[in-house]
Amino acid sequence: MIRLLQTAGLLLLTFGVYGQIPVPTAAQAAWQEAELGVVFHYDLHVFDGKKYNQSQNRISPVPDYNIFAPDTLDTDQWIKAAKDAGARFAILTVTHETGFALYQSDVNPYCMKALKWKNGKGDLLRDFVNSCRKYGLKPGVYLGIRWNSFLGIHDFKMQGSDPFAKNRQQAYKKMCEGMVEEVTTRYEDLFMIWFDGGASDPKTYGADILPIVERNQPNCLFYHNAQRADFRWGGSETGTVPYPCWATYPFPFSHAENTEEIFKNNFQLLKEGDKNGRYYMPAMADAPIRGYHGRHEWFWEPGDVAHIYPVKDLVRIYLNSVGHNATLVLGLTPNPDGLLDPQDVDTLAALGREIRTLFDRPLAAAGGTGKMFQLRIPDGKQVGQLVVQEDITKGQRIRAFEIQAYQKGQWRTVFSGTSVGHKMIAVFPEALTAQKLRLFVKASAAGPVIRTFAAYQAK
Amino acid sequence: MIRLLQTAGLLLLTFGVYGQIPVPTAAQAAWQEAELGVVFHYDLHVFDGKKYNQSQNRISPVPDYNIFAPDTLDTDQWIKAAKDAGARFAILTVTHETGFALYQSDVNPYCMKALKWKNGKGDLLRDFVNSCRKYGLKPGVYLGIRWNSFLGIHDFKMQGSDPFAKNRQQAYKKMCEGMVEEVTTRYEDLFMIWFDGGASDPKTYGADILPIVERNQPNCLFYHNAQRADFRWGGSETGTVPYPCWATYPFPFSHAENTEEIFKNNFQLLKEGDKNGRYYMPAMADAPIRGYHGRHEWFWEPGDVAHIYPVKDLVRIYLNSVGHNATLVLGLTPNPDGLLDPQDVDTLAALGREIRTLFDRPLAAAGGTGKMFQLRIPDGKQVGQLVVQEDITKGQRIRAFEIQAYQKGQWRTVFSGTSVGHKMIAVFPEALTAQKLRLFVKASAAGPVIRTFAAYQAK
Repeated sequence: MIRLLQTAGLLLLTFGVYGQIPVPTAAQAAWQEAELGVVFHYDLHVFDGKKYNQSQNRISPVPDYNIFAPDTLDTDQWIKAAKDAGARFAILTVTHETGFALYQSDVNPYCMKALKWKNGKGDLLRDFVNSCRKYGLKPGVYLGIRWNSFLGIHDFKMQGSDPFAKNRQQAYKKMCEGMVEEVTTRYEDLFMIWFDGGASDPKTYGADILPIVERNQPNCLFYHNAQRADFRWGGSETGTVPYPCWATYPFPFSHAENTEEIFKNNFQLLKEGDKNGRYYMPAMADAPIRGYHGRHEWFWEPGDVAHIYPVKDLVRIYLNSVGHNATLVLGLTPNPDGLLDPQDVDTLAALGREIRTLFDRPLAAAGGTGKMFQLRIPDGKQVGQLVVQEDITKGQRIRAFEIQAYQKGQWRTVFSGTSVGHKMIAVFPEALTAQKLRLFVKASAAGPVIRTFAAYQAK
Repeated sequence: MIRLLQTAGLLLLTFGVYGQIPVPTAAQAAWQEAELGVVFHYDLHVFDGKKYNQSQNRISPVPDYNIFAPDTLDTDQWIKAAKDAGARFAILTVTHETGFALYQSDVNPYCMKALKWKNGKGDLLRDFVNSCRKYGLKPGVYLGIRWNSFLGIHDFKMQGSDPFAKNRQQAYKKMCEGMVEEVTTRYEDLFMIWFDGGASDPKTYGADILPIVERNQPNCLFYHNAQRADFRWGGSETGTVPYPCWATYPFPFSHAENTEEIFKNNFQLLKEGDKNGRYYMPAMADAPIRGYHGRHEWFWEPGDVAHIYPVKDLVRIYLNSVGHNATLVLGLTPNPDGLLDPQDVDTLAALGREIRTLFDRPLAAAGGTGKMFQLRIPDGKQVGQLVVQEDITKGQRIRAFEIQAYQKGQWRTVFSGTSVGHKMIAVFPEALTAQKLRLFVKASAAGPVIRTFAAYQAK
């Protein structure tokens, strides 16, 4: 115990160099509290009947944007399916790499105003937000401004280098800023705004979008540019993060700067975070639901229902993201009729059922301040899963812990961990029989504050 | 007389090398018959309150296209003003160099669908065509596709040179072809379609637009690309052509090819044509009405009413274009309220009155086949203007002629000319007193066919 206190003291001293233990903003706390969200990818090429080739899509304008005509579009169906999986927020790709905007923009003519569909009056973002509010999910906006095959933007840069290209680059920045102004003022509170691939740096090619978001949506998660990220990409599109995955990070941005340092070792820093990082920046684990068996498809394509992950894989993904202190964002993509395919819907419902089955039969729970928390397991019950949660509003403090089981008159360590953060889930491959369980915090950056230490009945 | 016949025979022989004397199509005959038309320039920058700088405009996208909001737009007012001047056709710049399209395009999102104005339902071309039909003017469409500051098109070329730029160039060609398809199918019969600066060559950067026009508007004047021009630019924007100005030309295109040869000697070939040219291609003399006193403005700008040509200049322009066998196209430009300024309207009405005054008091007229046509001038009347017209459906045949006046018992040559074509106007600086006048055709490529030889009373 003396050794532990020394260790904690040393850690506190180390933190003292940087100042306080980083704590989340209200938005970041909500992000972690949400645990599971979805992102709907939908763009013109969903309607072209062809396989999506991202690198070609980036340099090939869609020949006819009026192919966008989902006859039976129903965003209620999308959102209800997401809710059934347990998602608490939903994001729409309002612009992706074609540059086409899924709303009524007054600054980007390449938008739904241009369509024959709904006589040019369609506003998918409006429908989407309405459905989110109806089903109690928080709506978010994804804006891709790094690529725009219509206007000739490649990796933020306008094609060409002469004064004409420079003028058009400037016009593009203004257009992007105008779109951000529109989406952050027209749809009430947004949960997040996601600039995919970042929004670069306003000092170079980037639109100056952060002040707009801060002014119009002060409580909205911002992801991301060279100035700021409220969460970080988890370093893969597998839907998982490794263990440990710390909620702190050494930079105020995710990966819009210092990419060489951040990207080394297969994105290790993004995946693991930095327990001594000065910035609170929890991880996002993202994956398309159609990522099974050799496919990895954010966008609907003909014949891909066979590549929807089986539910057991999605459960594994869930446990290795939410259970590792990250927020899981599953990629969904409606079909050209404007609906999620029934196979997606069924899979999402089954995922929701599986998650509920794992965590709807608590056997015992404890919490509070201190270093030791003990549970008594009812006789005859077997433990399948354990959950530990810190009160992250106080920061991620725990550095090392053990979970011990009292079996046959002895305490035995059944799990040794490091990171806890918002949630640490331990699943026992074989159900555990124990009279008592205890959580023993071995090291922490400050006094541990345990929100939950809970044991759940094995299936 | 023997010498004349020999000359005519020689000319016929010379023509024999090339074949028949070129004759106009019905559309070309209508073009010359119309004599006077107008072209309305209207584009986004009319609304920006600034001076127009064409070279900058070509490389600077308009920051906010929603400045296009003419509160009291009234195309009836435009067309009535043109009619009052005597115009028989009217053209609208459906796209100019910004790339913005003044109608409801389904292939170019940068169009009226994008505007807040009229809730995105405005169709200026529709309004324009309706007003033309109401007032009996023939509607024409001007499409500028050589420049597009929005999409990055400069002198037909997409900015950049990599595969992305090549793909976007291809997409732009398809978009232009789509716009041609739209404007040639949605508005009934068009008098002309005018690709300003040409539409280039479909074998290089040009959209392949000629087959579309030929299929959808077989009776429409086509101006112009590397393949065809139904009339030619008259080599200046002064509204005048020199004398002589032949209706024939050595190439099937105006100036989309062979520019070095065509552009030499200050555009001499465009201005004068070629009396031995194999192609029937009458001249267009174009000028902006706001071209007076150091200005030359196709587009409305604040403070330019002082630069509307005085009526006497417009009469001079008329006589030196229509009176030289060319068709005059006057450039008009409505203000940001959507109306021609009253000073433009008044000037057009005054021009119409002046032209009618010159030609509404015929003293005598003759016509038919032959080489000599004689008029008897009523006693006490003075001749101010003479008009000679060939029946151009038979081609421009006359190569040299004299007009002689019988005064004090003698025939005296009062005018020696070469080209007649659709119309030759001779204005006598001082009114002419004569008992008789005669037209004597001295040389012609084939037997002269005189539609009119007429004398008009001096003012």
